[in-house]
Amino acid sequence: MIILGIDPGLRTTGFGVIEKNGSKLGYIASGTISTDAATDLPARLKVIFQGVAEIVRTYGPDCAAIEKVFVNVNPQSTLLLGQARGAAISSLVATDLLVAEYTALQVKQAVVGHGKAQKEQVQEMVVRLLQMGGTPGTDAADALGVAICHANSRDALALLGTLAPGLRGLSMKRGRLIG
Amino acid sequence: MIILGIDPGLRTTGFGVIEKNGSKLGYIASGTISTDAATDLPARLKVIFQGVAEIVRTYGPDCAAIEKVFVNVNPQSTLLLGQARGAAISSLVATDLLVAEYTALQVKQAVVGHGKAQKEQVQEMVVRLLQMGGTPGTDAADALGVAICHANSRDALALLGTLAPGLRGLSMKRGRLIG
Repeated sequence: MIILGIDPGLRTTGFGVIEKNGSKLGYIASGTISTDAATDLPARLKVIFQGVAEIVRTYGPDCAAIEKVFVNVNPQSTLLLGQARGAAISSLVATDLLVAEYTALQVKQAVVGHGKAQKEQVQEMVVRLLQMGGTPGTDAADALGVAICHANSRDALALLGTLAPGLRGLSMKRGRLIG
Repeated sequence: MIILGIDPGLRTTGFGVIEKNGSKLGYIASGTISTDAATDLPARLKVIFQGVAEIVRTYGPDCAAIEKVFVNVNPQSTLLLGQARGAAISSLVATDLLVAEYTALQVKQAVVGHGKAQKEQVQEMVVRLLQMGGTPGTDAADALGVAICHANSRDALALLGTLAPGLRGLSMKRGRLIG
């Protein structure tokens, strides 16, 4: 099972690809997609869209997870971030991948064990959990964290045996089983 | 020259396709892409992405224009609208279409002649300018308005004769010639 995690942003979108074999997690790849702030918005969204598409083509993930973004104090920034996230999700769903969504809180809880973790703690735990040789940048580490969060969320489901598609979609979306 | 106009929204995305022959404008098609509020966000963005892609396949526009959205009083709504717009733009740029952006003010000025026009006035003028037999809904009318705005903006460029791609991109982006 190959899982792609995405940490969306207009300037920098982080990505992380991990492998899950039983309860073991392994690192495959991670990095960032950067856009040029000097180009117009459609051009920047195109870079994000095509970058994510290339990652999907290269690593062939079985599923994807993306971080939910929070509302910025600056409404214009919120609008730009929303558009970047829309481009990344579009690229994933265009290839019929199922896309789960997790809040930063859920990711920190899954990776570090509590929701108040700093970015550096997420980096450290990602390196440890995936037995990485080096430390990824914060955006790539966050994306790997989203992928780990999704891998752990699927663990809970495995306990229930075979699940109906509807239930699986529900639980993947919320990060935990509902009802 | 076939121009596609888009009025983006998460619940309803309006589209309008017009033809420009010299200074004459003609109506080709318009309508809306609706998403089911009961489905999750990635599924709704997929409907928008695939809907726009189908319109592009069906009508083969030479260029596209999309309305700039304003920041909502509700930040969460701003974030959702941003993602919907990101999905629509992704679908356009994925097919290598050039995408121009216009504010609602620019569209109203181009269609009605002043920026304080009501939605009904935009509908009326769109019907008159395109000699339509019936009245489109407000979302479709807004999308046709965006296409008309883009058609008029290109008129200004035609006066200058052949333009370098960079200059053309600049003027298309801003809706008027700069410098």
